[in-house]
Amino acid sequence: MTAVPAAQPRVAFTDEMKAEFKALLGDRFTTAAAVREHHGKDESYHPNFPPDGVAFAASTEEVSAIVKLCAKHKLPIIPFGTGTSLEGGVAALAGGVCIDVSNMKEVLRVSPEDLDVTVQAGVTRKQLNEHLRDTGLFFPIDPGADASLGGMASTRASGTNAVRYGTMRENVLGLTVVLADGRIIKTGGRARKSAAGYDLTRLFVGAEGTLGIITEVTLRLYGIPEAISAAVCPFNDIRGAVDTVIQTIQSGIPVARIELLDEVQMDAVNKYSKLDYKVAPTLFFEFHGTAAGVKEQAEMVAAIAAEFGGSEFTWATRPEDRSKLWQARHDGYYAALALRPGSKGWPTDVCVPISRLADCILETKKDIAESSMLAPLVGHVGDGNFHLVYVIDPDKPEELAEAKRLNDRMVDRALAMGGTCTGEHGIGYGKMEFLEKEAGDAFAVMGELKRAFDPENRMNPGKVVRV
Amino acid sequence: MTAVPAAQPRVAFTDEMKAEFKALLGDRFTTAAAVREHHGKDESYHPNFPPDGVAFAASTEEVSAIVKLCAKHKLPIIPFGTGTSLEGGVAALAGGVCIDVSNMKEVLRVSPEDLDVTVQAGVTRKQLNEHLRDTGLFFPIDPGADASLGGMASTRASGTNAVRYGTMRENVLGLTVVLADGRIIKTGGRARKSAAGYDLTRLFVGAEGTLGIITEVTLRLYGIPEAISAAVCPFNDIRGAVDTVIQTIQSGIPVARIELLDEVQMDAVNKYSKLDYKVAPTLFFEFHGTAAGVKEQAEMVAAIAAEFGGSEFTWATRPEDRSKLWQARHDGYYAALALRPGSKGWPTDVCVPISRLADCILETKKDIAESSMLAPLVGHVGDGNFHLVYVIDPDKPEELAEAKRLNDRMVDRALAMGGTCTGEHGIGYGKMEFLEKEAGDAFAVMGELKRAFDPENRMNPGKVVRV
Repeated sequence: MTAVPAAQPRVAFTDEMKAEFKALLGDRFTTAAAVREHHGKDESYHPNFPPDGVAFAASTEEVSAIVKLCAKHKLPIIPFGTGTSLEGGVAALAGGVCIDVSNMKEVLRVSPEDLDVTVQAGVTRKQLNEHLRDTGLFFPIDPGADASLGGMASTRASGTNAVRYGTMRENVLGLTVVLADGRIIKTGGRARKSAAGYDLTRLFVGAEGTLGIITEVTLRLYGIPEAISAAVCPFNDIRGAVDTVIQTIQSGIPVARIELLDEVQMDAVNKYSKLDYKVAPTLFFEFHGTAAGVKEQAEMVAAIAAEFGGSEFTWATRPEDRSKLWQARHDGYYAALALRPGSKGWPTDVCVPISRLADCILETKKDIAESSMLAPLVGHVGDGNFHLVYVIDPDKPEELAEAKRLNDRMVDRALAMGGTCTGEHGIGYGKMEFLEKEAGDAFAVMGELKRAFDPENRMNPGKVVRV
Repeated sequence: MTAVPAAQPRVAFTDEMKAEFKALLGDRFTTAAAVREHHGKDESYHPNFPPDGVAFAASTEEVSAIVKLCAKHKLPIIPFGTGTSLEGGVAALAGGVCIDVSNMKEVLRVSPEDLDVTVQAGVTRKQLNEHLRDTGLFFPIDPGADASLGGMASTRASGTNAVRYGTMRENVLGLTVVLADGRIIKTGGRARKSAAGYDLTRLFVGAEGTLGIITEVTLRLYGIPEAISAAVCPFNDIRGAVDTVIQTIQSGIPVARIELLDEVQMDAVNKYSKLDYKVAPTLFFEFHGTAAGVKEQAEMVAAIAAEFGGSEFTWATRPEDRSKLWQARHDGYYAALALRPGSKGWPTDVCVPISRLADCILETKKDIAESSMLAPLVGHVGDGNFHLVYVIDPDKPEELAEAKRLNDRMVDRALAMGGTCTGEHGIGYGKMEFLEKEAGDAFAVMGELKRAFDPENRMNPGKVVRV
């Protein structure tokens, strides 16, 4: 079973405290059990740790007021967007107040001429792209869930387009952040580059709410390409698929998306999304550019795929066919869980230097084949990043133990290959021991940084770092 | 005159201390006046603040030993690469020991299959590209000087290729850093993306040695494109040139380089590099891609330029012609100074959202036209970034005062337009007051961060932040 952190010292949440939060927020503060339960849990198998109360904030100033009230009473603070994190990031391990920003849904400014936008933290990626519909622009970062952009910034999210457009690290230009003492600061700005002082923006991106709460995000946008085409290509074996990816990346072909689904995941996708793809290791591609550029990229990749045992490409040229294809890919997690009704998922990911990707995937699949575990594999393989979902019954300790054993081996393997313990899911508390292993002496420095920003350890305590 | 920071409290450097450094380093520690003078000065007009001694380190472990000795004696520490910074970054404002890493020139590892490399901090960008010559790979970041990669990481350098390949922020994968107490940590790693913990890498990138000393750098590399072509295009007026840039960027054309030189700078370049370009506002372009892709990009940009009063493109297709063209561009600073023999340069840069670039440049040039100042303008305009060099006699207070007045107005203008006080030169001590203005309440947070990493304020003190 994964290590649940040792019980944290807990401040009793009193009726007097509740009255103060009610005075500030009225009905937007609640201690109702159902709401608290909903906020103590993410999308994974991690157990539920409900907060003492949930505050639905409407603005940066209100987040600041809530944070100050929490500071007064020494209460922990857990930020909450859509609750779609995967490593226990929203668990209220020591109780306290959950600040839910999902009502902060305003797109504050769009500047098509500068290809940037500022949104409140609760705006989701799909809402943003809907809002941009008439501008000819889009925001490319797409984790599986329709997550909030504040949450995506906090967890340094990425997705299928990262191989071309980067992750939240590369696409957040600036932030508004509320610090542990309630101060409001703005970091970064709208210039495309800056050598002005410490990069506070990238310090809060990926800090998972442990250094401050992100309330507004300024993001880069991109023009919708003149031409887009997508294709699916099954392979004889997984090595052929991965070698196609490696060769494509090494050749510098600017693919927009290059996603691997193994035969187990393809079977799941077929069943869940009512499709009839061949049940074989498969690459999903997308090409962006001018009409001529897209054609050229596709021909180059098709030639590489043919060398490594790929079949003909099946093209999805109409927008609705492409949407269907990528929706099926995004639903991969839910499709995996549907293979075993009533199960929960233990999703995990690692990322390795591209030259080690085939070895890392093949050794990992061998481990799974030798176990009794159902564990479909998908990957943003252009980045060297892949995911497994251990499909388990979390009430069965032997299944948790087996998932943990396989996961430990996979992460250790990735670290030994020069990789990272998580490409995009984050640390939460589920991967803290791996972060310690990966970061070495820098892990202690992260703890010192945490203490500087949050001396009382009240900002999402028990996550990312040990203090 | 620019504000020189108030005298810092100074620890007397004793003969006993000198003996200890000599015992550690032998001849590689010196207090010779000429060497100290050389290390107290960068490439700009800033006055000379020599350190008490200069230590030529050979390894990370040796940097750590020097730092520990400095800690023992409470001595300030100033890191030094090639001394080509522009905002007083190497000035020993409170004396202390300069750690020169220019002997740390080993390329530690090249992995062509993963498109990455690890170098010691003293390796320069030209040395690295020379080393990569037979691999088909290159490292694109190119500030004017042949700077060290440790220094480039420390100052978050960029250059002419940033519009396509990003800056040091996007291209440093990991670092080895020596902290104020001598601890050695490794940050980041070789995976292309990671959601594992705080982004310490990007915290040290751009910190200008105030949080720690970078001793090794892991960098992304790129395949040399199949096709490269470069062109020069003069314009009737500067607005036409800048509008061409804006339209190119807004159209999403992936130009590799798009550089503006105003008529004053073109005159300087012609004289310095013995060329005969038309003396007019001019754009220098470079296109990277497949043969067809490069042709397509060039045609699209040529069509835009024609709309805005651009002449025919003059193409440089042979590698030696392209080298000549870009060397002339890189020598822009020295060309500007050569316009007035015996002068010094006050180089400065700002960066604004692309839609404001024409206004910012035109208002700035109007200011200069109304003054008596010689101040050529060049710009990495694809990023919204441009540079001026005030060509002055720093012994004439009235010239310094006039440069300061113009500079204040330009930076304030850029900030009012949503820009930054420096796109790539950094803060040093020359732009600290502007950083304070730009960062607002976040400036104090930078100071708190500094105190957490360097409680005794000994790491490059007096730079970037106030403590």
